Amino acid sequence: MKLNSMPNFNIKGGIIPPMITPMLDDDTLDLEGLARLINHVIDGGVHGVFILGTTGESTNLSNKLKHELTQKTCEIVAGRVPVLVGITDTSTVESVKLAQTASDTGAAACVAAPPYYYALSQPELIEYYTDLNQRLPLPLFLYNMPVHTKTVIEPKTVAELSKLEGIIGIKDSSANAVYFNKLIHTMKDKSEFTLWVGPEEIMAEAVMMGAAGGVNGGANIFPKLYVSLYEAAQSGDLEKVRELHNQVMLISDSLYTIGKYGSSYLKGVKAALSVLGICNDFMASPLHRFEKSERDQVVKAVENIKSVLA
Amino acid sequence: MKLNSMPNFNIKGGIIPPMITPMLDDDTLDLEGLARLINHVIDGGVHGVFILGTTGESTNLSNKLKHELTQKTCEIVAGRVPVLVGITDTSTVESVKLAQTASDTGAAACVAAPPYYYALSQPELIEYYTDLNQRLPLPLFLYNMPVHTKTVIEPKTVAELSKLEGIIGIKDSSANAVYFNKLIHTMKDKSEFTLWVGPEEIMAEAVMMGAAGGVNGGANIFPKLYVSLYEAAQSGDLEKVRELHNQVMLISDSLYTIGKYGSSYLKGVKAALSVLGICNDFMASPLHRFEKSERDQVVKAVENIKSVLA
Amino acid sequence: MKLNSMPNFNIKGGIIPPMITPMLDDDTLDLEGLARLINHVIDGGVHGVFILGTTGESTNLSNKLKHELTQKTCEIVAGRVPVLVGITDTSTVESVKLAQTASDTGAAACVAAPPYYYALSQPELIEYYTDLNQRLPLPLFLYNMPVHTKTVIEPKTVAELSKLEGIIGIKDSSANAVYFNKLIHTMKDKSEFTLWVGPEEIMAEAVMMGAAGGVNGGANIFPKLYVSLYEAAQSGDLEKVRELHNQVMLISDSLYTIGKYGSSYLKGVKAALSVLGICNDFMASPLHRFEKSERDQVVKAVENIKSVLA
Amino acid sequence: MKLNSMPNFNIKGGIIPPMITPMLDDDTLDLEGLARLINHVIDGGVHGVFILGTTGESTNLSNKLKHELTQKTCEIVAGRVPVLVGITDTSTVESVKLAQTASDTGAAACVAAPPYYYALSQPELIEYYTDLNQRLPLPLFLYNMPVHTKTVIEPKTVAELSKLEGIIGIKDSSANAVYFNKLIHTMKDKSEFTLWVGPEEIMAEAVMMGAAGGVNGGANIFPKLYVSLYEAAQSGDLEKVRELHNQVMLISDSLYTIGKYGSSYLKGVKAALSVLGICNDFMASPLHRFEKSERDQVVKAVENIKSVLA
Repeated sequence: MKLNSMPNFNIKGGIIPPMITPMLDDDTLDLEGLARLINHVIDGGVHGVFILGTTGESTNLSNKLKHELTQKTCEIVAGRVPVLVGITDTSTVESVKLAQTASDTGAAACVAAPPYYYALSQPELIEYYTDLNQRLPLPLFLYNMPVHTKTVIEPKTVAELSKLEGIIGIKDSSANAVYFNKLIHTMKDKSEFTLWVGPEEIMAEAVMMGAAGGVNGGANIFPKLYVSLYEAAQSGDLEKVRELHNQVMLISDSLYTIGKYGSSYLKGVKAALSVLGICNDFMASPLHRFEKSERDQVVKAVENIKSVLA
Repeated sequence: MKLNSMPNFNIKGGIIPPMITPMLDDDTLDLEGLARLINHVIDGGVHGVFILGTTGESTNLSNKLKHELTQKTCEIVAGRVPVLVGITDTSTVESVKLAQTASDTGAAACVAAPPYYYALSQPELIEYYTDLNQRLPLPLFLYNMPVHTKTVIEPKTVAELSKLEGIIGIKDSSANAVYFNKLIHTMKDKSEFTLWVGPEEIMAEAVMMGAAGGVNGGANIFPKLYVSLYEAAQSGDLEKVRELHNQVMLISDSLYTIGKYGSSYLKGVKAALSVLGICNDFMASPLHRFEKSERDQVVKAVENIKSVLA
Repeated sequence: MKLNSMPNFNIKGGIIPPMITPMLDDDTLDLEGLARLINHVIDGGVHGVFILGTTGESTNLSNKLKHELTQKTCEIVAGRVPVLVGITDTSTVESVKLAQTASDTGAAACVAAPPYYYALSQPELIEYYTDLNQRLPLPLFLYNMPVHTKTVIEPKTVAELSKLEGIIGIKDSSANAVYFNKLIHTMKDKSEFTLWVGPEEIMAEAVMMGAAGGVNGGANIFPKLYVSLYEAAQSGDLEKVRELHNQVMLISDSLYTIGKYGSSYLKGVKAALSVLGICNDFMASPLHRFEKSERDQVVKAVENIKSVLA
Repeated sequence: MKLNSMPNFNIKGGIIPPMITPMLDDDTLDLEGLARLINHVIDGGVHGVFILGTTGESTNLSNKLKHELTQKTCEIVAGRVPVLVGITDTSTVESVKLAQTASDTGAAACVAAPPYYYALSQPELIEYYTDLNQRLPLPLFLYNMPVHTKTVIEPKTVAELSKLEGIIGIKDSSANAVYFNKLIHTMKDKSEFTLWVGPEEIMAEAVMMGAAGGVNGGANIFPKLYVSLYEAAQSGDLEKVRELHNQVMLISDSLYTIGKYGSSYLKGVKAALSVLGICNDFMASPLHRFEKSERDQVVKAVENIKSVLA
């Protein structure tokens, strides 16, 4: 049951980077890198941080590491911005345990995609989230991620779940803009339920149409750009939006397309942060860091992006 | 080979309704309805018409009917706006035959989605479109429709194909806004290659980000609304965009959600046109028109939309 | 409505090759090749022939060619074995027209996969096949081909449709043996409704478990082998089954794995027939015949298979 | 690295039930039920037991529970048959930890499906399994389960991995019999690499074609039937195979089709064991045990099956 002491999650909108997880090896955090990364994004003006999402390699980390990352992140953030903790797991017991650590260490909210082994139907999603929400000590954001979970949290299901105290918003990483506009339309009379968009390539237009903000991987690297783009979109400055959006597309096009097999984005973000001296680019199995030739491309891409942003 | 007399397709942007196909029975056109529909959308200010797309039930029509529809449409339009003809077919021979009729009767361009029985790979798509384009007497728009064709025409493939004389643009009905922004970014130095967006729920934002315009089903019914929304998006009037976009979302939400099994949109458009007295709502097998109770919902939805639009 | 003169389709079981379509160019049959192929398979002992299936490139052929192939095949077969005609089309009108030609020229039955642009739900499949069946002058086999049609004809749907006079069996090309065993179990009290299996790699086991026979592409090339394997499976001679099945697997492994992008099987069958001097290996767009280096591999594979079969 | 003391996994074939996990609540084992279940299947003649597979609800259990189940199962089995432990996890660190417990408590081998959040490509699968295998103290079975993992372990990938010491076989739950026959053909010269089939509906035919045996859920409930069917298939007694296979199909048809949303099989197995008084039918979140009306159907189905088996 939710505690009366539930922290208010009162971000109305903005940029919340889905933080990568700096690591030294398969089961050891890069704590210095973590501190540098957190300070880097907060200095860049982000409105919160989200750990243990897809970009955070959550599903590939040990349970021990997830709890440790949660605790350390909250310590380092020290209340400067709200911390959201991804508790997505195929085991509800593990999700609840992690949420407890999140609550104990001062996180603001949890984020959970559907369990991702079996594909759940819409009635099963309602049962699942209702049950999970009751067992959490923190507010909960839904997380729509169909490519990995094999199910879409349909707008009607979102509307149904939004009636439950404690379920306060949704992050959508589907890239399906029809879906997102249907979400906006369905939830238009419930403005306190916030809608967040994952892919940075569509953040600007989603914010212009009504999204609360972006949970964009590139904000790990260049947080100021994403905050500026959010602000331009929020204020309807279309000229500024187009200019900054082009820079985001340059990042997407040059940094997330190196390598192959669908992990290019993830490796690109982590490699860029390593190139910038922020943290280690070790990746948890089954993924691997870029090889030398790929990293060389990252170096060039980062230099080019920096010159464009300057 | 392309003729020197190839008509210039010189629409720079706007709204091109994917016209429904008015029918009296499985193999007979509703010619009076066709004329009323064409005049209705042209009076509404549309910038062209597109026949024999998904909304036109193209794949469910006999070859005879497709040729007849092409000829009759061109006659009725009589040069007032450009006519685009969908030639999507699993048989290239049939596509070419239909394109010949389109050319002979004065159509401006063809539109072709990938063959939809086998899913083609990217190299196969390049081969296919290169071969098809060579055999067409008219300019060609690509048509990305992955839910039906089981393949995406990737941005790099589009860029490759755009180098061929005669391939002049793409209509994207994927609803994937990341894909569309990548298209815009990839093609940004080739402004004469136009990018069109299918789903009306995302037309406004796509135009604000760089789309040429919308090929939106709802423009069959309420052409003025879509033209106005296009113009607002084109001029960056965000307030107006939000107001008109809400009306489009109301149409989407109330008119395309009746019935079941994924044909709700198609049946909704055709039923609304029937309710408005424009044309017959007969649908080609394997689809069927709405039953009485469903049509009653359409009547109510149309009345409500009209009162909101007034 | 079915005519009283409906030919009895009285094959109880056996091997029915899904015939390739010999062509000289995109819209011209290789009539000499067609005659040689038909005589080749009938001499090999097959129990019928099936034209205009997936292996027959049906969806890539013009309507004119389909009607012509139907007529010519029936003429050449001249009643020696029953002729089945694939009428799969997204346009019901075209399916019915082709069935009429099939009936007029003496074919025994039609075969239809679901329309393959929209994916139909189970109730829509029942509506579709009920409607189609009523309009056919010949008995109808269902054709389950989910990879191309995006829908499975569920066993319960098959059972429902089997109650209609005129729907007399199903060909399953799903490769899903659980599905096939469920079909067998569901239809176990209706032995006149015959169940046919597509992929030759599972023909033997399917026949041992209760299938009527195989509609196997390799039977175009080596009809005797498939007939012998069918007979061994039918009689429960497991030792013989394993020996002949190994030869079929050798064909599958060496002849259907050349080239890339999923058309290897189709190109392999056609190229092997060309190598054997039976017919042309031209393929209808968007497919292409093998290049020289690939054809060289086919030559070697055919030689090896012949030495093993000898 | 593998220890010299690696236990020999020397089952050549047979029936290995994928054991359900008896539970009292979300994080507590039903230890009495576990003991009864283990004794029940061993008494039924099974050749091993496999815990923590899909049927064991592995992905929905806490890590604590997985380790405890491994330890308790090995204790109760006490060497009577080999114990296989599913270590499938999206975190390699957790997989290795569980394998260590398995090794410490006397299990014979591990079984791992691909990580199931990201879909891995074939080269990534080779990297993943190579890395995992090196870190395991026990032999490893691959586990092909594409519906949940979104990737197929292709026969060529299996062949490549089979060259590694320690990777000793594969369990295939794809239901794709073409795939399975290709596996058999590809691995035909490596008989010590064993091929196991998951779905019980195809166990008999797979064994006749060359599978080592079945990992069949129904063997939790009626182990003797599955052992008898395996033996009949192994010895090529086709008449007996058909008789016993019909009984398996009756189980599949009447016990795994109650309820909805794809978990019918899992709930059916667990409910039947509860009806038989063997263990609790509690299911880990996000799944739930059957409701009263569904359980009533299970009671009837079990009675009917028992009368048929008698």
